[in-house]
Amino acid sequence: MKKIVVIGGGTGNFVVLRGLKQYNVELTAIVSMADDGGSTGVLRDELGVLPPGDVRQCLIALSNSSGLMRSLMNYRFENGNLGGHSFGNLLLSALEKVTGSFEKAVEETGRILFIEGKVIPVTMHQVHLKMILNNRKVLEGEREIYLSQEIDQGYKSLYLEPYPQVNPRVIEEIANADLIVLGPGGWYTSVIPNLLVEGVSKAIQESKAKKIFIANLMNRKGQTTGFKVSHYLKELVSFLGKDVFDYILINQRKPTVELIEAYAEEGEMVEKDTEDKRFIYADLLGPIAQRSQNDLMQRSLIRHDSKKVAHELMKIVDNL
Amino acid sequence: MKKIVVIGGGTGNFVVLRGLKQYNVELTAIVSMADDGGSTGVLRDELGVLPPGDVRQCLIALSNSSGLMRSLMNYRFENGNLGGHSFGNLLLSALEKVTGSFEKAVEETGRILFIEGKVIPVTMHQVHLKMILNNRKVLEGEREIYLSQEIDQGYKSLYLEPYPQVNPRVIEEIANADLIVLGPGGWYTSVIPNLLVEGVSKAIQESKAKKIFIANLMNRKGQTTGFKVSHYLKELVSFLGKDVFDYILINQRKPTVELIEAYAEEGEMVEKDTEDKRFIYADLLGPIAQRSQNDLMQRSLIRHDSKKVAHELMKIVDNL
Repeated sequence: MKKIVVIGGGTGNFVVLRGLKQYNVELTAIVSMADDGGSTGVLRDELGVLPPGDVRQCLIALSNSSGLMRSLMNYRFENGNLGGHSFGNLLLSALEKVTGSFEKAVEETGRILFIEGKVIPVTMHQVHLKMILNNRKVLEGEREIYLSQEIDQGYKSLYLEPYPQVNPRVIEEIANADLIVLGPGGWYTSVIPNLLVEGVSKAIQESKAKKIFIANLMNRKGQTTGFKVSHYLKELVSFLGKDVFDYILINQRKPTVELIEAYAEEGEMVEKDTEDKRFIYADLLGPIAQRSQNDLMQRSLIRHDSKKVAHELMKIVDNL
Repeated sequence: MKKIVVIGGGTGNFVVLRGLKQYNVELTAIVSMADDGGSTGVLRDELGVLPPGDVRQCLIALSNSSGLMRSLMNYRFENGNLGGHSFGNLLLSALEKVTGSFEKAVEETGRILFIEGKVIPVTMHQVHLKMILNNRKVLEGEREIYLSQEIDQGYKSLYLEPYPQVNPRVIEEIANADLIVLGPGGWYTSVIPNLLVEGVSKAIQESKAKKIFIANLMNRKGQTTGFKVSHYLKELVSFLGKDVFDYILINQRKPTVELIEAYAEEGEMVEKDTEDKRFIYADLLGPIAQRSQNDLMQRSLIRHDSKKVAHELMKIVDNL
């Protein structure tokens, strides 16, 4: 059975994992630990736990349990002091407290949800994401970076503080992978933070696995404004130390004009520029998602389609 | 297999159920829905859910899952806005929200915890416990009654508002029982409230089951001060409409003088008075429980022993 390692965090990882789960492959999700917004941020501040939000999404993606259990994990309390907390985040945090270990909490939640595959936090250390902009402003924390509208004016550096040791299981999984998938996802907040952990870039460079980068559908306004696929690749090379990718998967179907207009305040479509024989073009566009009022993070309306993405990835896997 | 129905709520029910679970019997817990203190009270107020606390304890008592899962269910968050909430209460409340039904939430939690037996809320209506004292003061809510120190000066009435319809499954379970166990537990706050629900007393009267009352170990100061076993029985007759009991199980072992003194501020031991051939005397005293700092309800130090209680109950069951 081929082993696929998916690196990212949040909704991007969810889509890829959920799609691949339908196939007979061995799945590992490596998850960024930089999240500090919303329910996750409050739990980090008040309870001193590691960030559960992105891990929760990956666990749900790999879950074989009932739809009810998955709804429960994503349920957000609406009122009172609990308002905004997702139940799955509370489960992970309570288990971290009871077992004394975030890793055990992830494992036990995986058992409760009957997951198939592995979910591995990229580091077990409490880290904070920071970014220094060209104008010398320092953005403190993932949330602040996520909300910034001036990153496209240039930044000097993006780093995790304190500089974290990698979870050793991550290095092992990357080394043993047949295919490594990076992206899609929040660029500076979910995808890149994995590469800021000691040893991760080197492990990806050295792995004999085929490597694929899935380009985002949309640029985020004030962050990656005007980015074409080549810009993303250039940034990846700078964080990875080398251009490691064998394939770059790019959506070629445009959403309706109405949807693009509705989305205009948040950003515009990512377009290809250079030609490259590694580029794979396909219709990757998902059905239009309704924004849930309960979803405090206001996820993207324009999303990748799990099935379409997995279909393209499996074409590669079948030729390995 | 003999069918035992245990009626009460909270810690008292927990002790009886946990003990009987070791035997080959069919167990049903009928649980008071009057609780409105602590974490349960906050959830009722803020989320409008039914009270999860007593149900949680019964589910844990009947659970076949790992010690870790049971610790998780009882885990109370210590800091921030979540402080004081037990994780199990949050699970039940989130499931009530997701499924739209408290009954389904109880069922699903039972599945997660691999329970053996049934846990049935006595009513599915939102009720509030009220007590009118002889001095015309009205105590509003289970918590206020639990904390009152003047109930022993006499009360005019104890009732649920609005007067609730019984959960029909309760009537069925009582009718089909071989043995019905009432108590031990918080007298006006856990045991009696079950009898205030429409039809419960009548169903107990009419059931062909043998009926046993397990007397509390301790009187609660300012509530049942000076009560002997006969006083408890007299009150039960007034709420049940009839003296229905075939057996009354009474602890005969005194705790150490030190423990009685340590407990003196909360109450004194319940003593027998009249002789009655239905009285069963046995050593029912549990090991000394450490008060957990995390346990906001400050449960009793002097408790029944699960095994000893179950042993006495099984002597009766074996002769049915």
